[in-house]
Amino acid sequence: MTTPANSRTADAAPAASRQILALNAFDAARPSDLPPETAALVARRQRSFGPTSVLFYDRPLHVVSADGVWLQEADGKRYLDVYNNVPSVGHCNPRVAAAVAKQVATLNIHTRYLYDVVHTYAERLLATFPEGLDKVAFTCTGSESNDLALRIATAATGKRGFVVTEMAYHGNTTAVTDVSPSSRPGQPLAPHVRAIPAPFGPGDVAGRFAADLEAAIADLEASGHGFAGLLVDTIFSSDGVAADPAGFLAPAVEATRRAGGLFIADEVQPGFGRTGAAMWGFQRHSVTPDVVTMGKPMGNGIPIGGVVARLDLMQRFAASVGYFNTFGGNPVASAAALAVLQEIEERGLVANAADVGGYMLARLKALGQRHGEIGEARGAGLYLGVEFVADGAPAPEIASYVINALRGRRILIGAAGRYGNVLKIRPPLIFERAHADMLVEALDDALASR
Amino acid sequence: MTTPANSRTADAAPAASRQILALNAFDAARPSDLPPETAALVARRQRSFGPTSVLFYDRPLHVVSADGVWLQEADGKRYLDVYNNVPSVGHCNPRVAAAVAKQVATLNIHTRYLYDVVHTYAERLLATFPEGLDKVAFTCTGSESNDLALRIATAATGKRGFVVTEMAYHGNTTAVTDVSPSSRPGQPLAPHVRAIPAPFGPGDVAGRFAADLEAAIADLEASGHGFAGLLVDTIFSSDGVAADPAGFLAPAVEATRRAGGLFIADEVQPGFGRTGAAMWGFQRHSVTPDVVTMGKPMGNGIPIGGVVARLDLMQRFAASVGYFNTFGGNPVASAAALAVLQEIEERGLVANAADVGGYMLARLKALGQRHGEIGEARGAGLYLGVEFVADGAPAPEIASYVINALRGRRILIGAAGRYGNVLKIRPPLIFERAHADMLVEALDDALASR
Repeated sequence: MTTPANSRTADAAPAASRQILALNAFDAARPSDLPPETAALVARRQRSFGPTSVLFYDRPLHVVSADGVWLQEADGKRYLDVYNNVPSVGHCNPRVAAAVAKQVATLNIHTRYLYDVVHTYAERLLATFPEGLDKVAFTCTGSESNDLALRIATAATGKRGFVVTEMAYHGNTTAVTDVSPSSRPGQPLAPHVRAIPAPFGPGDVAGRFAADLEAAIADLEASGHGFAGLLVDTIFSSDGVAADPAGFLAPAVEATRRAGGLFIADEVQPGFGRTGAAMWGFQRHSVTPDVVTMGKPMGNGIPIGGVVARLDLMQRFAASVGYFNTFGGNPVASAAALAVLQEIEERGLVANAADVGGYMLARLKALGQRHGEIGEARGAGLYLGVEFVADGAPAPEIASYVINALRGRRILIGAAGRYGNVLKIRPPLIFERAHADMLVEALDDALASR
Repeated sequence: MTTPANSRTADAAPAASRQILALNAFDAARPSDLPPETAALVARRQRSFGPTSVLFYDRPLHVVSADGVWLQEADGKRYLDVYNNVPSVGHCNPRVAAAVAKQVATLNIHTRYLYDVVHTYAERLLATFPEGLDKVAFTCTGSESNDLALRIATAATGKRGFVVTEMAYHGNTTAVTDVSPSSRPGQPLAPHVRAIPAPFGPGDVAGRFAADLEAAIADLEASGHGFAGLLVDTIFSSDGVAADPAGFLAPAVEATRRAGGLFIADEVQPGFGRTGAAMWGFQRHSVTPDVVTMGKPMGNGIPIGGVVARLDLMQRFAASVGYFNTFGGNPVASAAALAVLQEIEERGLVANAADVGGYMLARLKALGQRHGEIGEARGAGLYLGVEFVADGAPAPEIASYVINALRGRRILIGAAGRYGNVLKIRPPLIFERAHADMLVEALDDALASR
């Protein structure tokens, strides 16, 4: 079932990321009965970071340790983590921790000298890509990766126009904020950017997405900016999770190439096995990108990101500017990332994402039969979305209630989507069916108690 | 003595970073007799990174471990590190390594929950700043820090024009590359950027720098971009190290404020005690910036950067866009950075930089009396520059010879400056007088053997 929240004919509401955060943000102005230790930390935080720094929850979490899928508070309470996609092989994964501890005591330097671990990692990483996508540049963050990808596309095409989705979030640099409408609520798009509705149903999702893209390309061409590329998160996380039908990206990728642009797959969220179908989100759609960007889970929390592209694209960019990243791919980051890749492969975490994610999605859909507030449960692998509606309209207030009600039941979760009404489920990839049961049952209970 | 290399009347040569790198870069096309293991690593590197990826030295270094001021190659050879400013409290510093090992096994999460170490670090860091500079935002790199600083200045002033120095390097994002002329060799400056000569002598350095700035500001105002701020590395690293006379920045900062712009001090290179005078490079000049950016040595190689600014500036920026950095200030990065700060403070590394740097500078100046190739030795603390000249003109070929000759003598060093003729000396801050002796004597020997 699809709701007006995802209808492409809905009014072009101002992007809502701030609203979404506000749903779930601590507000120092509100009366509160925080424990003294937590209140003291909040005060320290505001003194150093300023009052605009966003904390999650009415009652912020004071965490002291984490392990697997669990975060632990100072008072000993444990929380099931359904929010954090960075520690994808588990919080404080022992193999990653050991690799980091060993490397940081042995060697940590930039990549203008030779050392082994970065090349072993680069080769293992590139082996997960389709033929042709065989060169990598390491960065420190997904933001830096997307920033570099934009320039690779501009150098290759000589154009600077990009098409993204309406609630896209691709990172925090100046250039990447321009292509992240969700970071610019209420502001007009940058002149060289066009935003199209994310590919939600019903009907011919693939055809509509490609048609919207072609209209945006024509508009960019007419504006004089020209078309450098299509940049999408292949699971459309911040748009509210769009996954089906698998393959819907193919006509858009064809349209991109016909227009001379590059297809940049932002795999910061779906990559490294999260969708359960394959290592990379684009593989679910049977397309091959020109450029792939990655970040978040790559080092399980040690900052590392990367851009993978064809040699010709890397060379064209290098001829114009060149790129060096002091920390990018350094031995500690590479060692952490290699351990992550080994964990994903040896522990079968892609298959686990498919199994546990499929199981959880089925249970969430069944829950939707009993709770009318659930408009739709959707997604792929361990990136799922549960959309809340009331009287046929998006219901962010229910998402907000659920986020806080689940916190009360010791489960951490967040929301996404244009209206902030989509619960986003993206736990560490080591999530088990028993954890899925806890979430589904707590959600059932929370909705019943509303 | 000053040479034409630093004369502001010299022709506006194309920025020369690529040339500088080329001085010191491995060239796969050149015949070589690399050991088989090194040759194999070079081949692996080119397969994964592409042929445009830059390696230092005719005979690239294959490093396997590091300790203090020493890097060790696979064959057991040890090299004195006079190049790397990131591991400023020493390669594989035990306190940093222990802090990282402990934290990565305990908790590593983003800053939207509360945890202690980030606040302890933020408070200790902010305590090193003058009054008023009392809010910090954490990033992962110096590039991300400067990217954010540019937006803070634009939000505060409503303008987008920046003034930088002719060979400035401030980082690798799209926006920061625009204000990094050294990254754009042979290309025109971005329309909103003006580059002025770095503040080198002889004569009234301060007055000339301020006058050049005022002319650039007037030009930005006339162009319609307006003036958002002056962005400088307070030791002018990539311009070739400009340090004297201390205080020369003050008139430029006054001119900046008169014109309604912000003064952004890029402390990525001079910060954290390197100049020997104080914790921050701007303090040598008795000025207080509006915004300070930091990176490289902050976590001794664990990626962390930061922006420090006044509350009003942070708030004005947050009102327009907001900023969140997933890995910025995470517990592992904070723990590493806290250990770095403790090492700097408890081991007196600022005073050590002054002592060893002063001693080394005196010896280098004395060397200049005996070797006519040395046009000038200059700098502050443990950021020194040795300028080579031949027949009164910049002599990058001597710098290139020296870099490779010192590598043969097991000392690692690099070059900077508009003509690539300035040896840059920026070892870990734990450098001792005995290490300075090794460098000076090897340099003496190398020049005598030329």
